[in-house]
Amino acid sequence: MKTLFVNALLLPCTPGMPVMPRGWLLVDGDRIAGLGVGPAPDTAGAQVVDLGGDVLMPGMVNPHSHLAMSLFRGLGEDVDDRLYRYILPLERGFVSPDMVRAGTALSALESIMGGVTTVADMYYFETEVAAVLDACGLRAVVGQTLADFDPPDHKTWDEGFARVDELVAAYGDHPRITPSIAPHAPYSTGIAVMERVARWAEDHPGLPIQMHVGETDAENDWAARHGLTPVQAVDQAGLLRPGLICAHSLHVSPDDIARMAEAGVGVAHNARANGKAGRGIAPVVAMRAAGIPVGISTDGPMSGNTLDLFAQFGPVSMFQKLAGHSRKPMPSVEVIRMATLEGARVLGLDGRVGSLVAGKQADLIRVSLDAPRLHPIYDIYATLVFSAMAPDVRDVMVAGQWLLRDRQAMTMDRAKVMADAAQVAGRFRHRMAEIDAA
Amino acid sequence: MKTLFVNALLLPCTPGMPVMPRGWLLVDGDRIAGLGVGPAPDTAGAQVVDLGGDVLMPGMVNPHSHLAMSLFRGLGEDVDDRLYRYILPLERGFVSPDMVRAGTALSALESIMGGVTTVADMYYFETEVAAVLDACGLRAVVGQTLADFDPPDHKTWDEGFARVDELVAAYGDHPRITPSIAPHAPYSTGIAVMERVARWAEDHPGLPIQMHVGETDAENDWAARHGLTPVQAVDQAGLLRPGLICAHSLHVSPDDIARMAEAGVGVAHNARANGKAGRGIAPVVAMRAAGIPVGISTDGPMSGNTLDLFAQFGPVSMFQKLAGHSRKPMPSVEVIRMATLEGARVLGLDGRVGSLVAGKQADLIRVSLDAPRLHPIYDIYATLVFSAMAPDVRDVMVAGQWLLRDRQAMTMDRAKVMADAAQVAGRFRHRMAEIDAA
Repeated sequence: MKTLFVNALLLPCTPGMPVMPRGWLLVDGDRIAGLGVGPAPDTAGAQVVDLGGDVLMPGMVNPHSHLAMSLFRGLGEDVDDRLYRYILPLERGFVSPDMVRAGTALSALESIMGGVTTVADMYYFETEVAAVLDACGLRAVVGQTLADFDPPDHKTWDEGFARVDELVAAYGDHPRITPSIAPHAPYSTGIAVMERVARWAEDHPGLPIQMHVGETDAENDWAARHGLTPVQAVDQAGLLRPGLICAHSLHVSPDDIARMAEAGVGVAHNARANGKAGRGIAPVVAMRAAGIPVGISTDGPMSGNTLDLFAQFGPVSMFQKLAGHSRKPMPSVEVIRMATLEGARVLGLDGRVGSLVAGKQADLIRVSLDAPRLHPIYDIYATLVFSAMAPDVRDVMVAGQWLLRDRQAMTMDRAKVMADAAQVAGRFRHRMAEIDAA
Repeated sequence: MKTLFVNALLLPCTPGMPVMPRGWLLVDGDRIAGLGVGPAPDTAGAQVVDLGGDVLMPGMVNPHSHLAMSLFRGLGEDVDDRLYRYILPLERGFVSPDMVRAGTALSALESIMGGVTTVADMYYFETEVAAVLDACGLRAVVGQTLADFDPPDHKTWDEGFARVDELVAAYGDHPRITPSIAPHAPYSTGIAVMERVARWAEDHPGLPIQMHVGETDAENDWAARHGLTPVQAVDQAGLLRPGLICAHSLHVSPDDIARMAEAGVGVAHNARANGKAGRGIAPVVAMRAAGIPVGISTDGPMSGNTLDLFAQFGPVSMFQKLAGHSRKPMPSVEVIRMATLEGARVLGLDGRVGSLVAGKQADLIRVSLDAPRLHPIYDIYATLVFSAMAPDVRDVMVAGQWLLRDRQAMTMDRAKVMADAAQVAGRFRHRMAEIDAA
């Protein structure tokens, strides 16, 4: 099964970030067989797709999310004690395998419709998450969360680790789903459990570790009680190691950054979630200058509200320009690099996805340039960062399989996804009213 | 000619910001004849539009832009001396009545497609701007710019004032177009010319004055040489008066804010343009607390890149939350209030537009709630601020005339608009290459 894309504005997102007008790209099975500029090769039997000058680029990589939390989106906004007032009680009351499937499906649909082809998730009942993401054809790193705050799917650490082992047993050899262990944060696991996770990681080379690191003021306070920064606490537990994906990393000192770079960790930057919470601006320019790969992520849709990366691009760029008091930091080409190959590197998947290169997996998206708001185009990267939006994504392919064509979901039953989500949301509304009345 | 909208999620944007599910609204001619919840009245001869639960709200008000600059969008991004390196030379070389018409038309199309029904413009050859906006049916405040930096349409102040008078003569009695005088900024007009503008304003009661005030570091330096803040310089010239629309107002002290409130000026807040330029965060919460009406504006699309307000909402909210280090500042309902009635108040048009009230002009938009990314909906204002996007705008009406139906422009020739814009952009590309080669 071959597909030949022609007449593309090809953005391979390889290290030089070339722009290739009138490009072609050939997909054979689940892989990219070749690409170039000018007349396409004569490929007998290939389905030819004329892109009419639209952008063809790698599918985007979202290295941090809590997908099932789409069901909490927009709930209890603008309230400082939101987590303890609404979210944790709702999670304890309602997070079940069914709820996780419903919320993950809604988020998967939105991810696909927004041009995300690889997503990292950390939540509960993670084998359910994996099953939903597998069925819809996305590529994913799925992380079973471990936490001490009476989470919905484990009462003890042993139960939590058992869930991780169950996930690895079920998805360890999957071509698109990578299992992962996800200690929630330093303060919500503690040094001893982080040490246990580090031993687990020694026994499972190649599997990523997902953790919130350097996110909140409360986390700083916890670390300070140990005479440490959050990064130092993680390091002391032996967990600052290749494969660790640090989410947020707002509160990292220059020394922390140097140590993170040396240790070989990656960072998932959640600009919109950090901005909405008023937490601060992560030192993305400094982390990248130190050699730390930084991907652009959405966080859970309770925090960032959307699951496409286009909605993150403006904040990612503007926050660094504001922090630097200059137009220069974080040019658009760097934003797109982070959204593609660099995000893949954060997840340890850059050998397989994140750029359009012969031999890599055929994970790619078409971005329509039809809308008047996208014109004129002087710098396609600026157009993608400051003018393009999720609805401009027209086609999406993962591992050679169409997930979206002409804005229509190909692997999901949209009506059922929306109905399932609405049912859970109705239960949340009822419980919210009880909380507010109490 | 009557139109009856039924089955709407009605957001009238009146002071209490009520949410009215299953609402109806009747348009008669150019005005709103009535609205309510529940069964719609029996209206013989009305065209009935069933909104299927979609949002019906006032058209949005964009109180500061330079519409023709859509032709500069994305050009020379991420460069600190962008204005002097690219923009001013291109403006001097290419800004002509034809260029202004082409750029304004592109921006008008984008504004309509993004749900903006009233826009304030300040640029050159402003009678051309007015003609384009009149023809496409938008409501507008059009401001002829006065500046000392060899602008494209006047060599002397007398020539500039003559252009203002020409604009007032042509559009002084227009039902949708309000002429305005637009001294560029304190530093680019000077005290004496600001005094002349103040005298002009005395002679033209009710006509707005548009000016960049408190925007740049260079402006602060200029004012400091007079021993003043920018606001004090404007005040000293007699120009801090009702009808003055201050664009940006980043650099305003608590004393400036108190004086602005007392003087009765309005502010046009350009979050995205300020963020992209790395200039800083305007004290929007403090200005509004002092009683200054603050609207949400796009600035020119060279600076902010888009002409819809949805793209501003995230930055407007997040910047204030970041500045306040809390989730609480600038809740979503306040963002929508600013985008509608408060923006209309900035322009002095709140008696006619900005909210859905019987007797006001029928300027309204339908926002589709079809996209999965918009769900669940717990708080429609949060949905509009953090999840909705320009492409969700399905229908737009101004003064009872359809400008957009089912995403199709009704009053503009889209193909011609795009072709005209492409022709000018080609000339800009050529000149850019010369500048870069020099």
